[in-house]
Amino acid sequence: MSVLIVGSTALDSIKTPKAENPRLLGGSASHAAVAASFFAPVNLVGVVGEDFPKRYLALYRRHGINLDGLQIKPGKTFHWSGEYEANMNNRRTLKTELGVFETSSPELPPQHRATPFVLLANIAPALQHHVLDQMRRPRFVVADTMDLWLNIALKDLLRLLPRVDGFVLNDSEAQQLTGEDNVFVALRKLHRLGPHYVIIKLGSHGSMLSGSRGHFLCPAYPLRKVVDPTGAGDSFVGGLMGYLAGARGPLEANLRRALVHGSVVASFCCEGFGLNRTTTISRSEIARRVKELEKLTKF
Amino acid sequence: MSVLIVGSTALDSIKTPKAENPRLLGGSASHAAVAASFFAPVNLVGVVGEDFPKRYLALYRRHGINLDGLQIKPGKTFHWSGEYEANMNNRRTLKTELGVFETSSPELPPQHRATPFVLLANIAPALQHHVLDQMRRPRFVVADTMDLWLNIALKDLLRLLPRVDGFVLNDSEAQQLTGEDNVFVALRKLHRLGPHYVIIKLGSHGSMLSGSRGHFLCPAYPLRKVVDPTGAGDSFVGGLMGYLAGARGPLEANLRRALVHGSVVASFCCEGFGLNRTTTISRSEIARRVKELEKLTKF
Repeated sequence: MSVLIVGSTALDSIKTPKAENPRLLGGSASHAAVAASFFAPVNLVGVVGEDFPKRYLALYRRHGINLDGLQIKPGKTFHWSGEYEANMNNRRTLKTELGVFETSSPELPPQHRATPFVLLANIAPALQHHVLDQMRRPRFVVADTMDLWLNIALKDLLRLLPRVDGFVLNDSEAQQLTGEDNVFVALRKLHRLGPHYVIIKLGSHGSMLSGSRGHFLCPAYPLRKVVDPTGAGDSFVGGLMGYLAGARGPLEANLRRALVHGSVVASFCCEGFGLNRTTTISRSEIARRVKELEKLTKF
Repeated sequence: MSVLIVGSTALDSIKTPKAENPRLLGGSASHAAVAASFFAPVNLVGVVGEDFPKRYLALYRRHGINLDGLQIKPGKTFHWSGEYEANMNNRRTLKTELGVFETSSPELPPQHRATPFVLLANIAPALQHHVLDQMRRPRFVVADTMDLWLNIALKDLLRLLPRVDGFVLNDSEAQQLTGEDNVFVALRKLHRLGPHYVIIKLGSHGSMLSGSRGHFLCPAYPLRKVVDPTGAGDSFVGGLMGYLAGARGPLEANLRRALVHGSVVASFCCEGFGLNRTTTISRSEIARRVKELEKLTKF
């Protein structure tokens, strides 16, 4: 089955202590869509400006990503620039130029409205609502978010949560949203806000799933070297949703392995700037790391 | 087989935002010995003053811990007092009174010198050396440490490492000792210092083992509530060594499950002040949490 992915499609200029990379392909939907493309057909929904490089359209297409829902508008593409500190954990935003993203809202081509799996990747909750309003009874909807929306669009986000099956956020966002620093107590409160499945991302420590079959501690694939963590969270949730859409059998039975596959794609993402490394991987490389994770965690 | 455990035997006065508990039984050897006692016979080596409460001697004995190597000397027992912040991660030392610990060194009764498993729990590396000097060809020796010794006794510690089979330290100590913040690179450098097995503790994120069968990511048992983390690291390594000493078959095959059992005993330790919770647990409670960890991590 296919997965519809809506989020930002952007250009990222990323600085680390070792290198500087201007105008890479970025944005939550770009990372998530490429990650998902290894497992299932992807319908991308987003907006870019006329300055959007042709080679990035070609990149999407090379991954079999359907671009019927990608609007190209007069104006500039959303451009983010940021800088990482030496430890690769702390980053600060240098500049955010919204461009055509500022005045657009995601419009779904009619042929996309019945896509069974829907990933509302990180964008404003109001836009996530707008996408759901256009969908016809999707089978499984997951929303990602970020601290920004907790700060400036909390009401919209709280209205969204009862409308989704799964909600993904990181540990500090979970703490901010629930006021609880214990992850179990936070999970309980998050379920009460609506979603049946909650996934808390723990960065390089993996993630935790809470759902009807209890909890799952999903490991992160341990990396020898992190080049650029931008988009790792988006790759995680993209890989997860792609795996679910592509897998046979009941969703509940595939969920844990979906997280592990998301985790593995996210590990590749961190090994290169932007999408440089993710775009080079194959299904067999992913399978190898999944196997390695099995070995690393078995006791 | 039995395990010899040497380290500090102390009184801990522990303050958290919610409670204050004076003169609890503490010290690295106390936590490690009680943790190990669930799996194997333990020979404790340490020193206390005449003020050491009789009820704590009774507590050791209740756990079948052999006290032939516990010296009781004129003077006061080592007394540590510390305070935790609300998040239970940061703690500061309020007072350290060394008492009889200052002028003593661990002397092994002759009947202990052939104990096959040896845990050099956290004390000064010079004292860890002194214990090894008295042992007769032990089968498996593991040393724990802390940042203090990296700062004030680094030379002694570096001389110790080629003499032990396993070395346990936490992630920030590994970074301090190797100058590497990537755990894999740090592990490689730590092996070069001598030990065949290296275990890096990651606090509430578990631990990582590196040895001849590659790496193992050991999960932490996720807790609903942390009351007092004092002694968790000592309980981890104590449970680990106790499990190894008590298990049949080749050591290499038991190592992963030994870490998991240590991890589980450490989780109990965090649920009460000092040894209050650890001393109440049973083998079947430990087995239950090990099973739960299996379920939590399986995919």
